[in-house]
Amino acid sequence: MSDLPKSVHLYEQGPREGFQFEKGPIATARKIELVDALTETGLKQIQVCSFVPAKNVPGMADADEVAKGFNKKPGVRYEALSLNEKGLERALLTGRFDITGSISLTASEAFLQRNQKRSFKQNYEAQQGMIDLYQRHQVNVDRGSIMAAFGCNFEGDISIERVLSTVQQILDLAQENNLTIKTLSLADTMAWATPLSLQRVVGAVRDKYPEQRLALHLHDTRGMAIALAYAGLQMGVSIYDACVAGLGGCPFAAHQGAAGNVCTEDLVFMCDEMGIETGVDLELLMRAARLAEDIVGHPLPGSLMKGGSLSALRHKLRAQ
Amino acid sequence: MSDLPKSVHLYEQGPREGFQFEKGPIATARKIELVDALTETGLKQIQVCSFVPAKNVPGMADADEVAKGFNKKPGVRYEALSLNEKGLERALLTGRFDITGSISLTASEAFLQRNQKRSFKQNYEAQQGMIDLYQRHQVNVDRGSIMAAFGCNFEGDISIERVLSTVQQILDLAQENNLTIKTLSLADTMAWATPLSLQRVVGAVRDKYPEQRLALHLHDTRGMAIALAYAGLQMGVSIYDACVAGLGGCPFAAHQGAAGNVCTEDLVFMCDEMGIETGVDLELLMRAARLAEDIVGHPLPGSLMKGGSLSALRHKLRAQ
Repeated sequence: MSDLPKSVHLYEQGPREGFQFEKGPIATARKIELVDALTETGLKQIQVCSFVPAKNVPGMADADEVAKGFNKKPGVRYEALSLNEKGLERALLTGRFDITGSISLTASEAFLQRNQKRSFKQNYEAQQGMIDLYQRHQVNVDRGSIMAAFGCNFEGDISIERVLSTVQQILDLAQENNLTIKTLSLADTMAWATPLSLQRVVGAVRDKYPEQRLALHLHDTRGMAIALAYAGLQMGVSIYDACVAGLGGCPFAAHQGAAGNVCTEDLVFMCDEMGIETGVDLELLMRAARLAEDIVGHPLPGSLMKGGSLSALRHKLRAQ
Repeated sequence: MSDLPKSVHLYEQGPREGFQFEKGPIATARKIELVDALTETGLKQIQVCSFVPAKNVPGMADADEVAKGFNKKPGVRYEALSLNEKGLERALLTGRFDITGSISLTASEAFLQRNQKRSFKQNYEAQQGMIDLYQRHQVNVDRGSIMAAFGCNFEGDISIERVLSTVQQILDLAQENNLTIKTLSLADTMAWATPLSLQRVVGAVRDKYPEQRLALHLHDTRGMAIALAYAGLQMGVSIYDACVAGLGGCPFAAHQGAAGNVCTEDLVFMCDEMGIETGVDLELLMRAARLAEDIVGHPLPGSLMKGGSLSALRHKLRAQ
């Protein structure tokens, strides 16, 4: 328990994860409304949208309009996702984003072959291409991401050795390009992690690369996300991707298998109650979560917006 | 991490929690169908129904018929809930149950006053009445329950000292009546626990009463249940109340504040994957969870029945 961090940094990805996933069209103004509501909560990093081909992701066809419309607040980092040169150029052209470049390798070759028709070697070369692209556009690259770090639907369990060698490849790529990686993000892309396996993998990476800050990207497909976040906190991990209201996921069986990241307000609640600073106003964040439900028009998985916070109850009791 | 138990005992309470909570009527045959499906999973203790006044809990008006109808399997303990002499007599009269008597005290006097119009002293006396009742009916009493052990909506935070003094009162009551308490159940009745506070309370009780087995009753109102269960496992706690499919809860805001216990199949999945024996067949349990959803006619909170198990994926990969 002693390794709990004093504070955490939350990287809010709800607008991108959620609106990318929703089947029906959502008005641009409402997407902007959610980003603005999130800005007011105290979150310091928000992924607003993605610049990807509209034919693949119709829900992001209005990314340029969303980018133009939201209110920027000083001290908040606004990110946009892109996967190739065209996307990155579109994002940069808006002049609205603080893009963080990332070297992203996948710990499962079967997943790479299935999803991107690439071998490990081809993916390594593709990442070199992305680095060239970032450098041409003066985008800072200080983050490495390990996808499928805990298991893969097409390969099965992933060994710790594989995770470590993937990290090493990222650091080698960085060094060859005179880049310094400061943060390593371990992504449970297909929701294979348990709290125990997470602690083992995090422990091994932390032991071998003690100078790196670690981040976690946790999917809730099997209901483990909040337990995984606690396991991460116990290991001192202080950076988490999260989605307000659990956006990206859905409690309906009709959307089988879909699940967002760990729910931001549930995670903020857990941190608040354990004395870990988040910098986020939980009541405002719960309001943003309810707004997200209103915008998508169906229940979202987050619990706290239904159950209510304890600070509100304590406040009421003190006033009695 | 080192205190993880080798195996856990799960006390399934879905049929009672779920059907008590549902608004619409559910056919008796379907309730029986779920109990029978649960019996086949390998669960060793199932709370089938409650014998309470039909005017208070209309969903349990058919408890006698449910009791008559389900198939008993040797080695499985079938429980029924009752709160007074009439209920206990009805339950015993069916001849179908293995009732465990429990001394139950509440750590919050404000909660007692609000819900049962009793002071601590009156509740203590009422529990003496329950013990007399159990003894008249030859019901074994070897369990103590501490309600509101982690906090209370009407009193706020509950101190560890209060929990310990409540435990001591239970043990004193037992001793005065020549009873031996073997298991202490800590109930997070109003979902105030965090993994950290749970570990502190469990640690304090375990340190002071090392001879007692500890059990946890965890509500998911604020989305913490699975993280709390992991925190409990880390402290060596090996007995958990749980509800298949998360019965008793509902992801709809319309049922605001309602939430079941930790979801049985999500917990079994976590244990399985961490090498902790449950004795439960996860695939059969997931089938029972989907049956529960079919019976209540709306989505239930459990994640694994939507996300799928990993053992099924591993099996498919091996067969390729």
